[in-house]
Amino acid sequence: MKVLGIDPGMLRMGYGVIEESDQRLAMLDCGTFTALGHPPVAERLYELYLGVKEIIGRYRPEEVAIEEPFVARNARSALAVGRAQAAAMLAAAEQGIPVCCYAPTQVKQSVTDYGGSGKEQVQEMVRIQLGLDRAPQPSDAADALAVALCHLQQTHLARLLGEHR
Amino acid sequence: MKVLGIDPGMLRMGYGVIEESDQRLAMLDCGTFTALGHPPVAERLYELYLGVKEIIGRYRPEEVAIEEPFVARNARSALAVGRAQAAAMLAAAEQGIPVCCYAPTQVKQSVTDYGGSGKEQVQEMVRIQLGLDRAPQPSDAADALAVALCHLQQTHLARLLGEHR
Repeated sequence: MKVLGIDPGMLRMGYGVIEESDQRLAMLDCGTFTALGHPPVAERLYELYLGVKEIIGRYRPEEVAIEEPFVARNARSALAVGRAQAAAMLAAAEQGIPVCCYAPTQVKQSVTDYGGSGKEQVQEMVRIQLGLDRAPQPSDAADALAVALCHLQQTHLARLLGEHR
Repeated sequence: MKVLGIDPGMLRMGYGVIEESDQRLAMLDCGTFTALGHPPVAERLYELYLGVKEIIGRYRPEEVAIEEPFVARNARSALAVGRAQAAAMLAAAEQGIPVCCYAPTQVKQSVTDYGGSGKEQVQEMVRIQLGLDRAPQPSDAADALAVALCHLQQTHLARLLGEHR
C-alpha cells in the first residue's frame, strides 16, 4: 500500500510518500511546497493543489493522510490550516482517493510512543522507522512522513481488530 | 461587470451572481449548495468545489468575492470556514479569476450603512438594492449577494480614488 502524508500549511506544506510491501516500509519521496514571493491567497492555494495533484499523479497513492490540528493556536491560523488542508483534500477527492485526518498528538504518539514530542525527535523516529541514513529535512517533510506512518499503523490496528471480531 | 459572491460554509454555502451594466444592477442567480447526508469532509469539499465551478462556467464572472470572518467563533469553526473558502478560491483560481475577501462587518456596512446588522435586514437591503420583488432566500444566498454588492462598491470606490489622484 502507498500512502501520501500531508502536513498542511499555507506558507510551507510538507508531503511524504511511503510504500509498504511485505511488511517493509520504504520512503518513495518527501519534501515541501513553499510559497515564492507573496501571491494572493487563492493563487497560493491553487499552487498547493497543483503540487499535491502532481505528487498523486506521480506515485498513485491508495490513501491520503492529513494532519488535523484539533486545537489551533488561534482562529486566524485555523482558517489558514483549513484552507491548506482543503487544497490537499480536493486534489485527493478529485482522484477518488480516500482521505483520513489525524490529530498532531495522535501522529506523534504513533511515531514516538508518546504525544507532545519535539520536532527533532519526530524527525529521528521517522528516520529510524523508514531505515533512512539521515533524518528527513525540513521538519514539515518529516511531519508529513509521520502522518503517513500514523495512518499505516492505524490501518493495521483496524485490520487486527477486524480479524479478532 | 459580473461578480460571483460566496458565503462560505461546509454545511451550507451561499452563492450569488450580480451583473452591473450602465450603472444598473441585476441579480442573475443565487442559491446554496447543501450537504446531502454526511459525506466525508474531502468529498464534501469536492462537491462544493464542483458546485462553484459549475456556476463560474455558467455565468463567467470577471471577479469572485468571498466572505472572510476575521474573528471566527472558535478555532474549530475557523478551520471549517477556511476549507469551504478554499473550495471556492480554487474553483476561481483555476479559471484565472481574481478573488477578493471581505470581512462580515465590511459586507454588512456596505449594504446596510452600518455593521452588525441582522440577517433579515441584510436580506431586505439586498432585495431593495437589486430591485427584487422578494428577499432572496435562504439567508446564505442573501449573504452571498451582499458580498458581491460589497465588492462592486469597493471597486467603484477604488476607481474614484484612482481618478482623483
